[in-house]
Parts: sequence; C-alpha cells; structure tokens
Amino acid sequence: MKLSDCYKIVRKRTESICSPLQTEDYVVQPVADVSPPKWHLGHTTWFFETFILRPYFMGYKEYDPQYNYVFNSYYETVGNRVIRTDRGNLSRPTVIDIYRYREYMDEAMDKFLCQEPSAEVRELLILGFNHEEQHQELLYTDIKYILGHNPLFPAYSKDYVSQKVAEHADGKFIKLKEGIYEIGFAGDGFCFDNELGRHKVYLNAFEISSDLVTNQEYLAFINDGGYQDFRHWHAEGWDWVNKNHIVSPLYWHAIDANWHNYTYNGLQPLNLKDPLCHISYFEASAYAAWRGLRLPTEFEWEAAANLLKWGRRWEWTESAYLPYPGFVKAAGAIGEYNGKFMVNQQVLRGASEVTSPGHSRITYRNFFQTHLQWQFTGIRLAK
Amino acid sequence: MKLSDCYKIVRKRTESICSPLQTEDYVVQPVADVSPPKWHLGHTTWFFETFILRPYFMGYKEYDPQYNYVFNSYYETVGNRVIRTDRGNLSRPTVIDIYRYREYMDEAMDKFLCQEPSAEVRELLILGFNHEEQHQELLYTDIKYILGHNPLFPAYSKDYVSQKVAEHADGKFIKLKEGIYEIGFAGDGFCFDNELGRHKVYLNAFEISSDLVTNQEYLAFINDGGYQDFRHWHAEGWDWVNKNHIVSPLYWHAIDANWHNYTYNGLQPLNLKDPLCHISYFEASAYAAWRGLRLPTEFEWEAAANLLKWGRRWEWTESAYLPYPGFVKAAGAIGEYNGKFMVNQQVLRGASEVTSPGHSRITYRNFFQTHLQWQFTGIRLAK
Amino acid sequence: MKLSDCYKIVRKRTESICSPLQTEDYVVQPVADVSPPKWHLGHTTWFFETFILRPYFMGYKEYDPQYNYVFNSYYETVGNRVIRTDRGNLSRPTVIDIYRYREYMDEAMDKFLCQEPSAEVRELLILGFNHEEQHQELLYTDIKYILGHNPLFPAYSKDYVSQKVAEHADGKFIKLKEGIYEIGFAGDGFCFDNELGRHKVYLNAFEISSDLVTNQEYLAFINDGGYQDFRHWHAEGWDWVNKNHIVSPLYWHAIDANWHNYTYNGLQPLNLKDPLCHISYFEASAYAAWRGLRLPTEFEWEAAANLLKWGRRWEWTESAYLPYPGFVKAAGAIGEYNGKFMVNQQVLRGASEVTSPGHSRITYRNFFQTHLQWQFTGIRLAK
Amino acid sequence: MKLSDCYKIVRKRTESICSPLQTEDYVVQPVADVSPPKWHLGHTTWFFETFILRPYFMGYKEYDPQYNYVFNSYYETVGNRVIRTDRGNLSRPTVIDIYRYREYMDEAMDKFLCQEPSAEVRELLILGFNHEEQHQELLYTDIKYILGHNPLFPAYSKDYVSQKVAEHADGKFIKLKEGIYEIGFAGDGFCFDNELGRHKVYLNAFEISSDLVTNQEYLAFINDGGYQDFRHWHAEGWDWVNKNHIVSPLYWHAIDANWHNYTYNGLQPLNLKDPLCHISYFEASAYAAWRGLRLPTEFEWEAAANLLKWGRRWEWTESAYLPYPGFVKAAGAIGEYNGKFMVNQQVLRGASEVTSPGHSRITYRNFFQTHLQWQFTGIRLAK
Repeated sequence: MKLSDCYKIVRKRTESICSPLQTEDYVVQPVADVSPPKWHLGHTTWFFETFILRPYFMGYKEYDPQYNYVFNSYYETVGNRVIRTDRGNLSRPTVIDIYRYREYMDEAMDKFLCQEPSAEVRELLILGFNHEEQHQELLYTDIKYILGHNPLFPAYSKDYVSQKVAEHADGKFIKLKEGIYEIGFAGDGFCFDNELGRHKVYLNAFEISSDLVTNQEYLAFINDGGYQDFRHWHAEGWDWVNKNHIVSPLYWHAIDANWHNYTYNGLQPLNLKDPLCHISYFEASAYAAWRGLRLPTEFEWEAAANLLKWGRRWEWTESAYLPYPGFVKAAGAIGEYNGKFMVNQQVLRGASEVTSPGHSRITYRNFFQTHLQWQFTGIRLAK
Repeated sequence: MKLSDCYKIVRKRTESICSPLQTEDYVVQPVADVSPPKWHLGHTTWFFETFILRPYFMGYKEYDPQYNYVFNSYYETVGNRVIRTDRGNLSRPTVIDIYRYREYMDEAMDKFLCQEPSAEVRELLILGFNHEEQHQELLYTDIKYILGHNPLFPAYSKDYVSQKVAEHADGKFIKLKEGIYEIGFAGDGFCFDNELGRHKVYLNAFEISSDLVTNQEYLAFINDGGYQDFRHWHAEGWDWVNKNHIVSPLYWHAIDANWHNYTYNGLQPLNLKDPLCHISYFEASAYAAWRGLRLPTEFEWEAAANLLKWGRRWEWTESAYLPYPGFVKAAGAIGEYNGKFMVNQQVLRGASEVTSPGHSRITYRNFFQTHLQWQFTGIRLAK
Repeated sequence: MKLSDCYKIVRKRTESICSPLQTEDYVVQPVADVSPPKWHLGHTTWFFETFILRPYFMGYKEYDPQYNYVFNSYYETVGNRVIRTDRGNLSRPTVIDIYRYREYMDEAMDKFLCQEPSAEVRELLILGFNHEEQHQELLYTDIKYILGHNPLFPAYSKDYVSQKVAEHADGKFIKLKEGIYEIGFAGDGFCFDNELGRHKVYLNAFEISSDLVTNQEYLAFINDGGYQDFRHWHAEGWDWVNKNHIVSPLYWHAIDANWHNYTYNGLQPLNLKDPLCHISYFEASAYAAWRGLRLPTEFEWEAAANLLKWGRRWEWTESAYLPYPGFVKAAGAIGEYNGKFMVNQQVLRGASEVTSPGHSRITYRNFFQTHLQWQFTGIRLAK
Repeated sequence: MKLSDCYKIVRKRTESICSPLQTEDYVVQPVADVSPPKWHLGHTTWFFETFILRPYFMGYKEYDPQYNYVFNSYYETVGNRVIRTDRGNLSRPTVIDIYRYREYMDEAMDKFLCQEPSAEVRELLILGFNHEEQHQELLYTDIKYILGHNPLFPAYSKDYVSQKVAEHADGKFIKLKEGIYEIGFAGDGFCFDNELGRHKVYLNAFEISSDLVTNQEYLAFINDGGYQDFRHWHAEGWDWVNKNHIVSPLYWHAIDANWHNYTYNGLQPLNLKDPLCHISYFEASAYAAWRGLRLPTEFEWEAAANLLKWGRRWEWTESAYLPYPGFVKAAGAIGEYNGKFMVNQQVLRGASEVTSPGHSRITYRNFFQTHLQWQFTGIRLAK
C-alpha cells in the first residue's frame, strides 16, 4: 500500500474511535494516567508536524507555535510542555479547533507525500503510524475510564461488540523443553527499538496455560478472601490494596450482592466465562500465588506464543521491563520513545481486544507500572 | 415585581453570563476551589428542585434521581454527593442535558408560581434567587480562572467592559469618632442569616481611606522586595508565599520585564490606575504592614461605608468570620448555608464589579480563606 | 525579689520539670507540634544568650556558634535554623551537652546580673522569664504527648498530683448586663504585647457557666453519636473528624468497653467528675452546638472572669486571635513574638493545671490552631 | 565452631558496633528508611525469641509481651507492630532496657544451646545469625545517616579506618565469551532462599571493568552538567533529581567550592581516588549512559566475579530483583524474608566495607529501591 494511503487509514481510524463521543467526553482527565481524548487527537497530529513536516517539508508553516507547548507529551528534547496532570484543565483549544488542526496537517501531509520520501523519513513515518495506533489503544482505554467513572455509567456505544478470539476450552498446560530459545524481533517489518537485539535465552523446562484466567476463576480468589490475606501479595502490593481499599478488578461493582462490570455497552452483569480484565500486576501475581502457580516470564511467553491463543488481554509477565542485550537509544527526541521507561515497570505480552491491527506480534513488549488496572490486562498462568 | 418575573430575570442572567463560552469551557475544573460552569448551571437548578418543588409542589416529578448526587454542593442533610474535587471529571450530564434540566425546572416553576406561594415558600424562593445570584458571581470568577489559566489566554469576550464606579481621586483618610455604632442588617428586605442580629459595637476613633489601593501603589511594594521580606507577613502567610512561589497578585505576568494581567478581554498591559485585584488576605495584610498601616475591621468598614465609594472590589478586613451575637442556625439543610463556615476565614466587605445587582449592601458579609486570590479582592487601608 | 534570684528560680523550675525523664525521653518528636524536651532546654537558654548576653554583656563569648542554628525557634530575624519538623532527628547536642550549655549561661548571667541592668535590659529579662515559663508549660504538654503516645504508656511520675482548683458544684449560669466593658491589660506588672491596648467593648447581656464541662457531660455527647452527626460541626471540623477518625478527646482509650485516659500517672480509668481535657476547638464548638449553647467570646470571658473559678483548663473561646486596637509589633526579633500568629487561630482564656505560676491573669491571651488537642484545653459554656 | 560460640560472636559484634554511640544516637530516625540503633538491637533479639525460644524452648518465659508489638519489623504472620515510620517516636523501652532484654535472651539462648539442637532449629539459628549480620550492616549505614545529617557532623569514631580492598589500578575491561553460565548458589554453606535454584543463563559476549568508578571520575560527570541533562536519565530518575534537588551523591557538601564528604571520621575533603559511594540506581545508570556504557546484569557480574576485585561497594546492576526459576517461599513467617520484596527493586552484587564477614559471596543478592542512596553503593561499568 502507498504510504499516503496508510497515513489516511491510520488517521481515519483515530477519528472513528472518537465518533460516538459527546464534546464534553473529549475534555476531562479523571486521573493523571488518563489523557483527555482531545489531547490524544492533538498530540498524534503534533507528532507528524514536529518530527516530519517541520524538519523535512520545505516551506511548511507551523500551524500554531503554542500547540507545541500544549501537545508535547514527554519529549524533553522538544521543549516545555503542559504538565501531564493539567491536560484535563484546558478547555482550549476546543474539539473543533483540534479537528481543524488535524485537517490542516492531513492536507499538508498529503502534499508532502506526493513525492516519495527518503528512507529516513519513511522510517519516521512508519514510527508515526505506530505511534498513532498506540494512542488509538489508549483512546479506547481512556474513554472507558472517563465513562466508566461517571456516576451515570453512560455507554460508549450500545452497538459495540467485543472482538472475540477463538479460545481453548480445555484448560491444558502446554509443556516446553529446557534449552536455548531465540528472543526478539527478526524480519523486515516494523518493530519498536525495545524488541530489537534478537538474542539467545536459556530456559528451564516449563508449562504454560493455553487459556487465560476467567472472571469465574478470579471470583473464587475474591470469595476465598484473597484481597484480605497478605500471604499472597508482594509487600508493595499489600500496601497498595490497603491504602486504596482495593477489593476487586477495576470496573467491578457489587449491586445487591451481584457482581456487575462496566463495559462499552454500559453497566452489565458480570460474564463469568469472559477472560478476567483490568487487574494490576499486584493482583495478577497474588492470584497466581494463591493458585500455587506463577506468571510466565516474557521469554517463556515468547517461546510458547505460537502454541497459544492470545489477543484479548495484555498478559502480565514475571519480567521487569529492561533493555535487551545491545539496546541503544537513538539520538534526539526519538530516542526518548522507550529506553527512559526501563525501570520499575513490568512487561506485558500479547495484545488486547482494543489493540490496533498490526500491533499483534509475538515480540511486542508492552509495559506498565505494577499498580495500574486501567488497561485490558489479564492473567495466564505458568509453572 | 411578581415573584415569577423575578425568577425569570435571575435565571436568564445566569445563562447570559455563560453565553460567550465554548462547550469545553463549561467542563473543566483547574483547581478544587473552582467549579465547572456546567456544575453551577445544574446546581442552581437543583436548589429550586430540592428545596421548593419536591417538598411543596404536589405531584412534581423529579427530573432525574441521580442528579441529586451530581449537583448537591455541600448539603450533608440532602445526602451523598460527588466530591468537590471530582466535579471537573464528569463529562455527563452534558451541557445540553443541563440546559434541558434548566428548561424543565423553569417550566415547572412557572406552573408552581401561578398560585401565590405561602410566606414560608416565599422566603425560600428569595433565598433561591440570592443563592443563584451568588453563583453568578462565582461563575464570573471561575470562568476567569479557567480561561486565565489556559496557556492560550483566550478572552472571555472582546466586548466586556468592566463596570466602573466613580472614584475619589483625593486619597484622603476619613476620620470617625470613638463611640458606639450599630452593626448588622435592619429593615424589611432580604439579607442572609449571617447579617442578622443587629447589635452595638464600641469603636475607638479611626481613619479609613476613601480610596482603594491601586496597581501602581502595589507595584511599589513588589519593587521594594515586599514578597522577599518576612517582616511584613504573618508566619502562615510567609509559608504560603514560599511554598507556592508567590511573587505577584493572581493573573499578573511579567513579559519582557513589563507587567501584564489577564482580563476578560485577554492578556493586557497592566493598568496602573486600576484598583488592585486578586490578592489574598496574606498579601493585603502584608501590604498594609509595609505601609505602616492596617486593614479596617468589618465594624469600622460598616460604620464608615456611607462615606466611602465602594463596589469594585471585595475588600479584605481585619475581622475573622464569626457569628454575630444571637446568631442561630436554621434547622435542616438551609441551616447549612453560612454557620458551618464560621471558622478560619476572613470577612470581606463591599462588592465587586462582577457582583450581582442586589448583593451590594453595607451589611453584606462575604468570607474566604486567607490564601485565596481568585476573587475580585482589593485593599482599603485604615489607621 | 532580685532579678538574679528570679532568674535562678525560673531556670531551676525548668530543670525540675525534666527531672523524672529518661535520657531517651528528651530526644523524640512524635509530631511536628511537639518539640523534644532537650530542644526546650536549649532554646530557652539560647534566648538569654541571643537577646541579652550577646548584645549587652561586653566581652561575652558565644558558647557555640552552631547552637544558633540548632536552637532558634522561629525568629527569621536571627537567621537560619533547623526546620521545626527536624528537631526530633537530632541526637546531638546530647542532653549532657545541653545541661552544660545551661550551666555556662547561668554562670554568665550570674556575672552579668551583678550589676543593675538598664531598664531596656530589665524588660528583656522579664520577657525572657515569661518566655521560659511558657516553655515550661509546653514541656509539660510535650512530655505528656511523648509518653502518652508510647505503646508502653509509661508514667511521667507515680507521685504527680494534679493541682486542684476549688470548684463550683452548683452548675449555675452567671448573668452579666449589656453595656460597655474595659478589656486588656492595665497596671504595672508584666504582660505580653497582645494584651496591651486596653479598650472598650460593647457586650450584649449574656450568661456564662460557673463550671467547666466534665468528662461525664462530654461522654453523653459521645454516647449520643456526637462524632457521627455533621450538624453539630463546622464544615472544616467535620472534615477533620472524618479524615483523622476522631472519636474522643486525646488520650482517651476504650479498653474492654471502659473508657480510660492517659495521665501523668499512667493509663487510668476515666474520672467522670474531672473537667474535660484535651479537646480541639472543633470539638468544643460541636459540643456547645449539641447542647444548644455556645462558647463565650474572649471579651465576655474577661468581663466575667472575676466571678468565675478558673485555672485548670485553658478554655476555648468563640474569638479569633486578632490584634487589639492600636496593637503595634516591636521592631526586630522581639516583634516576632506574637503578632505574626494573628491569623487562623482561636483565643483561649484562663490557665491550666500545668501553667507556670504568674501566667494566670484575666487578660492573658493564649491561642492555638483549631484542630489541636494536645494542650490542657476545656469547655465553658455561654448563652 | 560450636553454635553457641557463633551465637556469642555475632551478638557481641552488634554491640561493639554501637559502642561509640551516645544514648541519644540510639533513638532518632531522621527518615523512614533509617531505623534507630536501639530498634535494631531490640529487633535482632526479638528474632531469636520469636522464631527459636518461644516455639522450641520448653518452659521459656516471654520477656515482655509488648515487645512483640515494638520490635516486629514486617512479619505480618507474627501480628501487629509499630509502623515503621514511628520507630523514632518511641523513647521507651530505653537503651538500658534493651540491653537488659539482650542479656536475658543471651542467657536463655545459652541454656537452650547446651543441648544439640535439631536440624530444623539449627537452620533457623543460622538464619538468625545471618539476619543479625544483615542488621549489623544496616546499623553501620543508619548510624552514618543519623550522624551525617546532624548539623554538627559528629564523627562516629576518630579511629575508624575504612577496610581497604586491594584494587586494580589498570582500569582494564575483562572480556567474557558468549555462552551458557551457571548462576545461583551451590554448595553446603548457608545462603538465602533468593540465591537458590542454580540455573543456566545464556550470556552474550560482554566486557566488564576490573575497577569501580572513582570519586574523581564521577566528578567529571557532575562538572559536565550530568545532573542537569535529562538525556542521561530514566524518566523516573529525572523526576527524582528535580523533585529532590539532587546535585551530588549523598554526604557530599561543597564548602567554599571544595567538595567534602561526611565519613565515619567526620566531615573530610573528598578523597578523589576512593571508589564512588552513596549513589542511587538512577545516578549509577545515568553515569553509565553519560559514559556511553552500561551497568552489568547480575548474571554477567556473577559470571565474571572470580576475575574481579570486589568488596568495598555494593554494586548496582541492570537486573531487577526477581525470583530465580523454581523459587518457592517457605511457609509461615520465614517465608516473608525475601520473596515479598521481588518487585520494583534493583539487584546489587558484591559487598561493602561495612558488610559483615561471611556475607561476601559471589551468589549473594542484595536489593534496594532505585532512589536510595544511603547504602555503600558504587558503580562498575560494562559494555
């Protein structure tokens, strides 16, 4: 496909995710980790302006110099910015202003892409597409948070159907042998810098579940007093449970003694067969301990991935987010993409039902802080 | 005027204050003390529904039972509510939803007011008008905060003209004699419960300035290092200055060494002749100490009020907000209006350029915490 | 009495208060408001060194230049200092070091006082005595806090007998007539600057209780659910109760459903006849509201004082701590004594069982923040 | 050696570390991470009482039932305890009380050890010795923190000589080949549970420095603006630097433009040849990035250890603290020793100049949070 067509498809998809929203839904930021949808719309646009048009498109006229301050996310290289927790305090630029900004950029990009870009620009463009696709997933999760924390529990869309993945029903553990496995990206397609550096890893023999843990299985943990028994938890996790009065996954509500959860269709009775969702690493690890099992490492996961059905939940692993051998940060702002987060975070593998197409590959490394529940996270057990 | 006409005028004015806003401006809450405009629109409506229609209008059907949770401000008597700091996290009800809620209420009130209400209801109605007029002033101050803290500094309205009050130009101090003065509301009109209990106060002879302190006069304090010299400040004020890095009144910005301030017309060069605005009690008190003078007490102010020109700034006084002799809280939710705030706040007297008509009387007692700058506050000196 | 004898008596008394302590008790600071006893010992010594010997005693050699940094309390004029919350983090100077410092100062003062001091020095000396006597009271309260918050509940002294004041047993309210009363210090003796400016105050007729509220009376408030009913509380008080889970006065412990309280003799069953102690202003005010009464103002208290028995509890008043007419701060460090605290504090009148002799006069104005319970505070009702 | 002799040697050493202290030095806790020396003395004693004498010594009489509450560190299994941040608020039990407690326990242990203990008890005893030795190291670091944060900078001991380790002077990088290495404890001696599970690890070829980074080398980083350039830092590290105004390792003070650092001998001019000490993981990682190098992983370190001189600094590694394959927590309180901390911490390898003898083995895994500087931490580079 032509790059200009790829560009249009990616950009269109972002806007289509937002189409069911009311203007007000674009504005709010209920917690620091969630960004207002209008910020995502502006930030992904700013990315193309800042890293492609301004440096590479001769004669390009910056849309508004103040937008750099408003839409820069975390790139210290590119200058000052609105602090993250203040994104929800900005009523301007308005949603319409930002859609105009997108339109302006899309027209400029269209002109720019008339000519075949250099290899260097091509690489940045593909990074830009992947960047916007990552924000598409964040849009889904942030919209869910915004609507799911409103006391009126409005549906995102009555027609939303969660993307099903054919699932094992046999609950088997798959065995892999001891030995050397190759880990990391190989091939010609796009990958992030944190997947590079394909290298050998020595794994002991292990077993990994073909299925994800279901709501029903996790309910057994809750009903057994799992959230009240320190023995299953990391010390830091136990503090987190008690300080935040955590008693269930995010979006779960006990109404008249029946568990419900908030979904894109509104508040619904809990579907027991569904794979568990919206749990922190602390909860994933505590559940595994309660079962007498453990989470897989990211290496075990990657080694076994072709034998597993996956794709509905990002799966917490036992691995901390660290550089692969030979990892080098790129120079300049692009180098701030991944490397500077490689501390005190845990790796997730797989993909979720709201992951953008093309972000599902077995070498993909997602990562979050250990207390976060707002992603579509789940549990796969190992032993 | 008929009560139903009063009702319409008051309600119309609220909406007219909001008319220059974009939808997004209605939603945000940059600090806890500022409420989103849409919340004010809903809350003032909920006030009539809760305290008049539901108890007194036979057959009235509540608009939406969840709105009580969303729009209750601080009335513990009336049940649970969204915590104050979360008001800016709610994208729903939308602005349109709330205007519909207002319309529904206005129609119901219109029907209800066809019949002459009882004296009891009449009193509540007038409280409701005054309540909404207080929120009109808060709307003005909160809108200024929302737009004035946006990095784009959008104007509220290019045509806004600040309401001028003819001013003394002579800078004289007016002398009052030692003796007994009567303080508190007398007469038939409306007043709040905190103004009642007219009583005698013995005052020493004192002098009070006919003019408010101007921007120019306050600049001399800044230029003399007033914010860097602890001797002028209360201990708590000095902590506040240092912890928050305060170096000027709110909305002042030094741009290329020239002072500007944000106004409803956008960012403007500072008008030196204007009365100073947006200072905390700590700053008012420090300025007076630097001048070797002091602030008047609220009793001195009231005793002298007929000799002063006032009405552009709420004026900080040396008096803490305390009950007048014989003050009694009303029973029920209405009793929560004033009494429960009578601790650790300072009295302000006068009125400001955004005060609703009918809230300018010499017995009116406004009150704020000593660190707040977001109101149209000013300084009048005494000795 | 000769000044040098006064000096010795005051200094001796400070050390005698500390005599039952273990070395370790001198060191700790369980909360910011409590200072380690060794800090009080050093600070009161530093006061004489800094304000008398260094400026007025020719040839005086400073004991240790670093002690200014360690023992300055809040005098910005005198330079930097250990921040208040860090006092409990200093193991050095040791207790023995500080007793040596006291000895050194006492010898120097003895020499200095051989000659009759000037009037100016005389005044500072008397301020120094009163200053040390205030710290004697703080020593008592801080020692109680330190031992009373230790899980072993050690007694300060098995032999401590609380100083009884003969009490009314009739529970009568004393009536005072409407009219002008004179308030503030008059006479030749010592008083603090905040008592000066004797002035006329106009009081409405009022009644004031001859007795303090007892533990038994306050228990009725607790048992009636006083801590669970927002209607009795200031909004800020209600937040304080809920945020800090307050359910009783300080030092009260329900053990097997029987109320005990910590005293200087250790943990004891609650004496129901004793005047209530260790309550915040919020609690005092809520209790009065629950009784349908109120606290007296500081002017009412002073007007009635000669008709009351008082002296076991500092009594919360309805008056905020504000300057009297004509109040002027002294120049230099001495001017930092009182004036800079005149905001967001409430006045207490009377004296307590641990108040130093000579600090009981009807014009004495004590003051604390409204949430503090650690002083020997009590309640007297008015109407 | 007989177990009873081992016991005496270990116990004696703890007391000898404390012997230069003043009573007051035993009491304070300047930050949450530092425990008062008297707490360490009590806690290590409580460990033997709780895990050995109470369960295994027939007829043993608990010394004081309240001590369990006071001296339990983090064992949820063993019941409630003084919260960690409150340890410095306890003046009782006194230092003498605690030495008596130690004496009581030592006598009881002496009797208990007359008879040959079972294998199970033997294992617990050895754990107890190792536990006390770990606290000996903590005593050293906490004492340094307590005295080094006192404005008087008292020496711990004028005679303290830092234990030198013969050092490479050649600054060479040692090369290791790609391949499989065995990691984890093997043999008969004592090790902690986190070292068990000897397993194979596949390593790429790498080079590791024979020397630790010196003060002089680190100064070049400071002088090059290393603390002001975000590019070298993890995002979380950069926040830490700015929020805490970090500009140098802990204990460094620039006096008249010359760097000094606090040592056990008091404040001293910085020794440029000494290995760098007291830096956080964030600083270690930033320094390595500035050099264009990296830290070794814990596996690389262990593989190379026999070729390195080590033992003066705990060395930060690039490895997060995670369980080895097959790691299983023991049942009961002993199981709380290590496993529950395996999240959001970084592994350190080696040993420091204050590490107890017998805690220096190449499989030893120490771990701390990434922002902590108070240990004797250093940097070894790899590539």
